[in-house]
Amino acid sequence: MSVCTLLTDFGRGDYYVAALTGVIATRAPGTRTVDITHEVAPGDVEGGAWLLAAAAPWFPPGTVHLVVVDPGVGSDRRILAASAGGHRFVGPDNGLLLPAVEAAAERAGEPPELRAAERPDLWLDGPGSTFHGRDRFAPTAAALLAGEPLSELGPPLADPVRLDFPHPTREELADGAGEILRGRIAHIDRFGNLITDLPAPWLESVTAGDGVVVELEVDGRVHSVGKRVSHYAEIPGGEPAWLVGSLGTVEISLAGESLAERWRVRRGCAVVVRRMG
Amino acid sequence: MSVCTLLTDFGRGDYYVAALTGVIATRAPGTRTVDITHEVAPGDVEGGAWLLAAAAPWFPPGTVHLVVVDPGVGSDRRILAASAGGHRFVGPDNGLLLPAVEAAAERAGEPPELRAAERPDLWLDGPGSTFHGRDRFAPTAAALLAGEPLSELGPPLADPVRLDFPHPTREELADGAGEILRGRIAHIDRFGNLITDLPAPWLESVTAGDGVVVELEVDGRVHSVGKRVSHYAEIPGGEPAWLVGSLGTVEISLAGESLAERWRVRRGCAVVVRRMG
Amino acid sequence: MSVCTLLTDFGRGDYYVAALTGVIATRAPGTRTVDITHEVAPGDVEGGAWLLAAAAPWFPPGTVHLVVVDPGVGSDRRILAASAGGHRFVGPDNGLLLPAVEAAAERAGEPPELRAAERPDLWLDGPGSTFHGRDRFAPTAAALLAGEPLSELGPPLADPVRLDFPHPTREELADGAGEILRGRIAHIDRFGNLITDLPAPWLESVTAGDGVVVELEVDGRVHSVGKRVSHYAEIPGGEPAWLVGSLGTVEISLAGESLAERWRVRRGCAVVVRRMG
Repeated sequence: MSVCTLLTDFGRGDYYVAALTGVIATRAPGTRTVDITHEVAPGDVEGGAWLLAAAAPWFPPGTVHLVVVDPGVGSDRRILAASAGGHRFVGPDNGLLLPAVEAAAERAGEPPELRAAERPDLWLDGPGSTFHGRDRFAPTAAALLAGEPLSELGPPLADPVRLDFPHPTREELADGAGEILRGRIAHIDRFGNLITDLPAPWLESVTAGDGVVVELEVDGRVHSVGKRVSHYAEIPGGEPAWLVGSLGTVEISLAGESLAERWRVRRGCAVVVRRMG
Repeated sequence: MSVCTLLTDFGRGDYYVAALTGVIATRAPGTRTVDITHEVAPGDVEGGAWLLAAAAPWFPPGTVHLVVVDPGVGSDRRILAASAGGHRFVGPDNGLLLPAVEAAAERAGEPPELRAAERPDLWLDGPGSTFHGRDRFAPTAAALLAGEPLSELGPPLADPVRLDFPHPTREELADGAGEILRGRIAHIDRFGNLITDLPAPWLESVTAGDGVVVELEVDGRVHSVGKRVSHYAEIPGGEPAWLVGSLGTVEISLAGESLAERWRVRRGCAVVVRRMG
Repeated sequence: MSVCTLLTDFGRGDYYVAALTGVIATRAPGTRTVDITHEVAPGDVEGGAWLLAAAAPWFPPGTVHLVVVDPGVGSDRRILAASAGGHRFVGPDNGLLLPAVEAAAERAGEPPELRAAERPDLWLDGPGSTFHGRDRFAPTAAALLAGEPLSELGPPLADPVRLDFPHPTREELADGAGEILRGRIAHIDRFGNLITDLPAPWLESVTAGDGVVVELEVDGRVHSVGKRVSHYAEIPGGEPAWLVGSLGTVEISLAGESLAERWRVRRGCAVVVRRMG
């Protein structure tokens, strides 16, 4: 039985998620639909892209990911159908899918296949032009689940839309004086943990944590975190610490309290890690 | 594998939804349960009825809809089990199911079958009299899923309880001077879009949108919307517009912002559409 | 097809629930995962334990319950895998599972089997030490779902960690002058109903409710409730009443309004029931 994940910005109080699920159940009856999340902020393509890239790798090969954060619905933006590492992805061509698709391709060691899905014969003729999730994306995903090859969905898409966000950097200081890593807060979780985009392996040589300081600038004020721990329960009460998070990036946390609330941190905040040589 | 949808006002933080799901899994093991929503406001029968009617049509024939918004639980209100257009429905006889049942019957072009479910032999003997969803509705739905015919559940129910809410009207003005449609805001979605009950086909003759003005009265102030678009991305920044929504009714929206919040609109607000002749 | 329930404090806006579901789908493909709830307050082991004990009994034998409220993640707290009454349970050994496990054992009339799950060969080698739900609990649950016997998961665990909370008591007054029951508010539901831990059968001899007064002390003020009803719709407008709730305990409610909000009640509040002899 195939799995179809759903990730949207629809919330859980409307009929929208049910409509996607119903279309999949109708067109690809053997499918098991699984909600990744529907709590992406309305229209937050970047937030949705991060969550998809975080969640997708834990599903089995053969999974189809149906992803709808689509402020451009109804316009002429294209529909992207992609395959990478045995997973397939369907959603708007607005940058939402690319981070997950490219990470899956990198893990598999082969390039992704990207198609502009253009099969109106598959679409539903639902009312209006405001719900392509139901009328176009879900039927396209259902076709994949029902065995349609990706190559039949449309022509190769060579220039997918990409999100424009800064990537983390590392800079070796002169004379072996150390290193500076620059990144940002990529996600704040329910517990108020600050998940950065800085790969923990960049700090591999300093696993003891000695001489590493993580700095976060919020509203003009710089917070410095020198304490490193391996898990939350090791964090001293009331004092923030940094650790390697569950996605392999640097994370900053407080014990039993939201650090995001205490420091009023928002996603996108700049993070600097200084390692003395 | 049959699908059983769940729609309640239980929220997602209690054990109530799990109890329904568990009873279905116990009594009709092959069933796949799907959450439509559990965010109906406590006791909001009308809101639940609207969401059920919106969501149900997208599920495949054979689906059983288990629906619990039941402020009269424990009293002598009846249990309604219905069939229409290949779908079955189980819930309290308080008006909650009728809009979805009657719409399904209309689409199928045949009358619905309504029964007063009265099969105590199917019921669970759970503690108390406060959770008929678990003790009566779920076992009744499970019986249908396990193959029990609807006709075996109880006698025909000829006088189902109906919600008393106004239906939209249209009035032709004298001398071909135009038309006036009167309706109301039937639902406000997560994005703050205002979904009316006015069927878009009533405006078919004016698809260009010329000479059509949508008026909404909120707290004594009338807002007029003259701009018509085909999808959200076409809405000019900061200015509301109307369009045909995903259920085929007139909808009023803002781009990237909640119109419901800006105008403080509540469900039930009167909407008037004026078309010049 | 086996059922695996999920109960966590992860919320629904992160990738955490999806990761658990994905690992189960990968390791035990035939499984149907069902969300009990993910709205347990962050780190609220006692709240999670109550919800698990409330929800689990409604699922069929063979169900595996994967439960993660785990503030001690990454430390040396043990992993508990248990079996009772045909259900299996996997989670941290912090008291979270015990009330549900022991109640299942009591219903089945046989002792539970408790094991310290220590099978690193099953674990995932995910990044960091902060997400044992994904890396250890889910693979352990998946092994059970895939047919691994509980006895193969690790040695018997004789001294499971227990939550330290007061149990309800009853005291017979001298000279047949009546009885005093002492308990507390164990859970407040979405509707604001106050669910106590006092077993309704303790009041069996007084089912008419005559001469029974339920008292609740909130912030130094005592509220007395003398009115007993059998279901919510019977509660007089504006006036609180007590009834037998859906778990067989005494519950205090208002009609169509949150009693918890009106009286500002929090979980844990002391409840005293006085029965005149």
